[in-house]
Amino acid sequence: MPIDLDEIFKALAHPVRRDMLVWLKDPHTHFLEQDHPFEIGVCAGKFDHKTGLSQSTVSGHLASLQRAGLVTSRKVGQWNFFKRNEDVIQAFITHLYDAL
Amino acid sequence: MPIDLDEIFKALAHPVRRDMLVWLKDPHTHFLEQDHPFEIGVCAGKFDHKTGLSQSTVSGHLASLQRAGLVTSRKVGQWNFFKRNEDVIQAFITHLYDAL
Repeated sequence: MPIDLDEIFKALAHPVRRDMLVWLKDPHTHFLEQDHPFEIGVCAGKFDHKTGLSQSTVSGHLASLQRAGLVTSRKVGQWNFFKRNEDVIQAFITHLYDAL
Repeated sequence: MPIDLDEIFKALAHPVRRDMLVWLKDPHTHFLEQDHPFEIGVCAGKFDHKTGLSQSTVSGHLASLQRAGLVTSRKVGQWNFFKRNEDVIQAFITHLYDAL
């Protein structure tokens, strides 16, 4: 699993983006129900509500996480759904443990 | 051990700073001998040589690592010596492992 350390560290340098990753671990606890099941991901709009940030700010944060490979997205109709990319997250932690 | 995650992630987002931390793990392998023993730390000037970067760029990188608590410094005469702060590095890895 190739990982982009620069992008991962940059993404994780913001507390909101770290929170987003934690929330995605357990969407049922952190978000109100949505029309689509959480298995396909959490709708971007849910993060606007949860953070109180503007849609464009949230988009920027999600794009940063996605650029780092920490989340993947899927478009359904007009909506974007986000999930954790556990392979990259695990590869990152393992790398740190070995390299740092 | 309180750690500043924002500063740590920012510091680690640059490959040279990650290299510096790795080199400090085993100074005898990565640096030529210096007048003072490596136990007090690696002299800042050693990093100029090793990286081929200017003194001011290296100072900036070392300051970033120090702001993050990942290294500590000690002044002897006119020289600054840098060491890894293993307590912070371990606390950071443990935190990631639990939180991410």
